[in-house]
Amino acid sequence: MKVELYDTTLRDGSQREGISLSVKDKLSIAAKIDQLGIHFIEGGWPGSNPKDAEFFQLAGNLELANAQLVAFGSTCRPGADPAGDPNLLSLATSGAGVVNIVAKGSALHVTQVLQTTLDENLRMISDSIQFLKSRGLAVLVDIEHAFDGYRDNSEYTLKVLRCAAEAGACCLVLCDTNGGALPDEVAGLVTITGKLTPVNIGIHAHNDAELAVANSLAAVKAGASHVEGTLNGYGERCGNANLCSIIPALKLKLGIDCVTDEQLSRLTEVSHYVSEIANLSPDAYLPYVGSSAFSHKAGLHVSGMSKWHLSYQHIDPALVGNRTRTLISELSGRSNIIHRANEIGVPLPPRGKEAQKLLEQVKDLESKGFQYENAEASFDLLVHRALPGYQPPFELVDFMVLVENRRRAPASKTADGLLSEAMVKVKVDGNIMHTVSEGDGPVNALDNALRKALLQQYPSLSVVKLIDYKVRILEESTGTESRVRVLLESTDGENQWRTVGSSTNIIEASWLALADSLEYWLVKQRRSCRENPIDQG
Amino acid sequence: MKVELYDTTLRDGSQREGISLSVKDKLSIAAKIDQLGIHFIEGGWPGSNPKDAEFFQLAGNLELANAQLVAFGSTCRPGADPAGDPNLLSLATSGAGVVNIVAKGSALHVTQVLQTTLDENLRMISDSIQFLKSRGLAVLVDIEHAFDGYRDNSEYTLKVLRCAAEAGACCLVLCDTNGGALPDEVAGLVTITGKLTPVNIGIHAHNDAELAVANSLAAVKAGASHVEGTLNGYGERCGNANLCSIIPALKLKLGIDCVTDEQLSRLTEVSHYVSEIANLSPDAYLPYVGSSAFSHKAGLHVSGMSKWHLSYQHIDPALVGNRTRTLISELSGRSNIIHRANEIGVPLPPRGKEAQKLLEQVKDLESKGFQYENAEASFDLLVHRALPGYQPPFELVDFMVLVENRRRAPASKTADGLLSEAMVKVKVDGNIMHTVSEGDGPVNALDNALRKALLQQYPSLSVVKLIDYKVRILEESTGTESRVRVLLESTDGENQWRTVGSSTNIIEASWLALADSLEYWLVKQRRSCRENPIDQG
Repeated sequence: MKVELYDTTLRDGSQREGISLSVKDKLSIAAKIDQLGIHFIEGGWPGSNPKDAEFFQLAGNLELANAQLVAFGSTCRPGADPAGDPNLLSLATSGAGVVNIVAKGSALHVTQVLQTTLDENLRMISDSIQFLKSRGLAVLVDIEHAFDGYRDNSEYTLKVLRCAAEAGACCLVLCDTNGGALPDEVAGLVTITGKLTPVNIGIHAHNDAELAVANSLAAVKAGASHVEGTLNGYGERCGNANLCSIIPALKLKLGIDCVTDEQLSRLTEVSHYVSEIANLSPDAYLPYVGSSAFSHKAGLHVSGMSKWHLSYQHIDPALVGNRTRTLISELSGRSNIIHRANEIGVPLPPRGKEAQKLLEQVKDLESKGFQYENAEASFDLLVHRALPGYQPPFELVDFMVLVENRRRAPASKTADGLLSEAMVKVKVDGNIMHTVSEGDGPVNALDNALRKALLQQYPSLSVVKLIDYKVRILEESTGTESRVRVLLESTDGENQWRTVGSSTNIIEASWLALADSLEYWLVKQRRSCRENPIDQG
Repeated sequence: MKVELYDTTLRDGSQREGISLSVKDKLSIAAKIDQLGIHFIEGGWPGSNPKDAEFFQLAGNLELANAQLVAFGSTCRPGADPAGDPNLLSLATSGAGVVNIVAKGSALHVTQVLQTTLDENLRMISDSIQFLKSRGLAVLVDIEHAFDGYRDNSEYTLKVLRCAAEAGACCLVLCDTNGGALPDEVAGLVTITGKLTPVNIGIHAHNDAELAVANSLAAVKAGASHVEGTLNGYGERCGNANLCSIIPALKLKLGIDCVTDEQLSRLTEVSHYVSEIANLSPDAYLPYVGSSAFSHKAGLHVSGMSKWHLSYQHIDPALVGNRTRTLISELSGRSNIIHRANEIGVPLPPRGKEAQKLLEQVKDLESKGFQYENAEASFDLLVHRALPGYQPPFELVDFMVLVENRRRAPASKTADGLLSEAMVKVKVDGNIMHTVSEGDGPVNALDNALRKALLQQYPSLSVVKLIDYKVRILEESTGTESRVRVLLESTDGENQWRTVGSSTNIIEASWLALADSLEYWLVKQRRSCRENPIDQG
């Protein structure tokens, strides 16, 4: 069985609330998606906006190894001649060799939304396809509302399908535009269409009933050979069918060789790349590609995993370029701790008291509001600190933070009269460093002052940047006296790590998480220096 | 066809990375889920941790209108007698009348993970069920890895199912523990199980292949009458089957009357409540309940919607308590503003410029990080402040906050050497009040100092308490310079209200939300005083 993959992240995906892609973003995403072995990449609707027209001009320079670029559009308007329709002309001149036009597949939509006759809609479909074919293009047709239409007036929807096939469409793509169809319904219409015509059948599903992946797979099992979707399931409302879930299901579960093993192993990387370019945090809980997709928290599961690596995973994560993560928490047992310590190169004896001691320390700290499952770097520091002879790269001594809002603020303060200042005392290599800095809020001021103190001894620390700062209030019922947990995410441009701090005082919680972030990086540098003394000069 | 709904948000749901629920959180969630008409609420695993044991002690006081509470556990250990197994005894004494025990349904898991014989596993299942039945309990059995087990060694999985049925289980719940099964596979085993025994069949699906909802519906169509899942699909790795998608699919698409229309219309509210208590942002893209689920961005769709309200929606959102949003429309905004102002007794002319001005103010403030959807009290204050002649009960002038951590702290400071102090200047009735207070963290110190200033003029303010304090970081990518939004919830013992503050400085954001909370209450008092002068003396 052969299945073609068709990506519409650049058009339908960008309809997601909050996404806005520049032409440059689109070109980068297209080049990246190509690495996955996707067969078609829909670049946009050149007739609908100048950005998409520009994309197609520049896309000629993309050297795609696998994918063909597709331009999207619609049939001509009621009463119009395709040869005089600017929308169709822009398709004909976009430079893409394949086009996809949307056609109304529901009688109700023709009369109520398009407000024309059922016969005129058939004429528009037929003439538009023939026009584009006469310009040498391969023409796919997205049959909008195919399933809703078939439910309301099956005879007319079948007429539309037959009309598009007879006019020369190379693929009839059944669209569940509103995302409300059920898998049996989808399989049913695919089977009926297959009896109607030998033309390829495609599926274009939306996730409004959380069934887009199931509907896509049901279509393939019923005979569809073309699947449309988006990376990470981006799309209008609840999103489009998620290619990141469909591709591994086709290959690993249905045995359909739609991409190579090597291409499949890039899935996680490509998924994260696309979210990065779209400026959205990667969704940790996404199947196959999310950072939580193969993470284990329950002690029973971690202990099961240590006996058999597939005991609580439906596939080997390496097949899709992801990895197993063991979460450390009060609910997890000693085995999680030994497992994680091993991962960072600190083997702990399985029956020794070291792991037990660390577990008790984790439990104690978690009862004080720390949480290690999202803060591996802070946990790794606990392990290092438990080693005999551990020398911290610096020690916190004192800090003081001042936040002031004065109506008659002198000119030196920020525009709104708000001043945040932090004073920090840190011991580095036996010396006390005492620094002060202003900042955009008290935590930023602390961050600035701490770096000022440490950069003198550790200039390489300047590459470390904070990229995320999250605050959670614990035991919510106690109002402003609540305990807070701060989670920080940092990067050195290559790797990312997360640290945690907790206190009833948000300033102190932030201070602890900040200090852990910088200590973690310095310790890691020191260790890699020891392991590779020549590399490091 | 009858289908029972079974919620495991409190146990399996809390395995989601990042969720940690207190006993109080769990009790609140159970009471809320009950309003949905869910038939069973699994409260936790009383034998596994003291928190869950405490939950069951306190849950006796919950007055649930619809749901039965269920205690979760596992079969006895290999070689053990159920009557002497602490895990089973804790189930027998939890106070719940229904229990659910997990049993291994896969031969490979019995030998490789449990490391016992296939026969001993059957003995454990049978003895455990009989023991719990003898204590007067109804016993559901979660058959772990049922589908994986059937794929590897179908004969043994069927033996397990027959054994549990014969021992007296009232429901055989087929679990897709690793979340990798396909809908056809699920339907197949449900059908086979139905031929094996007349006992009720259940489905417990995980979302690792993005098929949990499809698998749950496939099981029901094949004869399962019991569906396990979680609110918002929370759960380990990629989550459990999402009841917020399953319930409307059963009722609206399959015509199975599992909840009443009125209960279904609370779905969005309950979904948001649970995410709020779990301190997770509601997922905007969730089917049915997400704020984007019925939002329209594409011009063609918005124009279609204006011609026919179901043209681009698979259901009427009101059925699940959600609503259509047009992302570019300002008209819908103005009508909402007029509606809300009317509710608080401030009629605005429908075509006047007042509503337009307020709408622009809200837009401006929302662009600065405020959000009024969850902070009606702050919005109400905007309306009051827009009225001619509005006299604020107090005016903020200055504040200063100091947080200090000194190693050699004098005895007057808190135990850990941490001092938080706030100085506040407020104008009340023409007089400047200048107060100072310590606190448990900077925000608590501000709260204390502000109250100290206001209580002299408004002694009745002492009844106002803060009951919730939440911080969200916006624009996450900018680290410690991020803009923060503070949401406060307050009560006077009778009513509750929420206020919002936003700033790049967490202290200032808290200060604004605090001040709004107190001003809101004082304004409300003043208005009710005017309306009922006699009541108020």
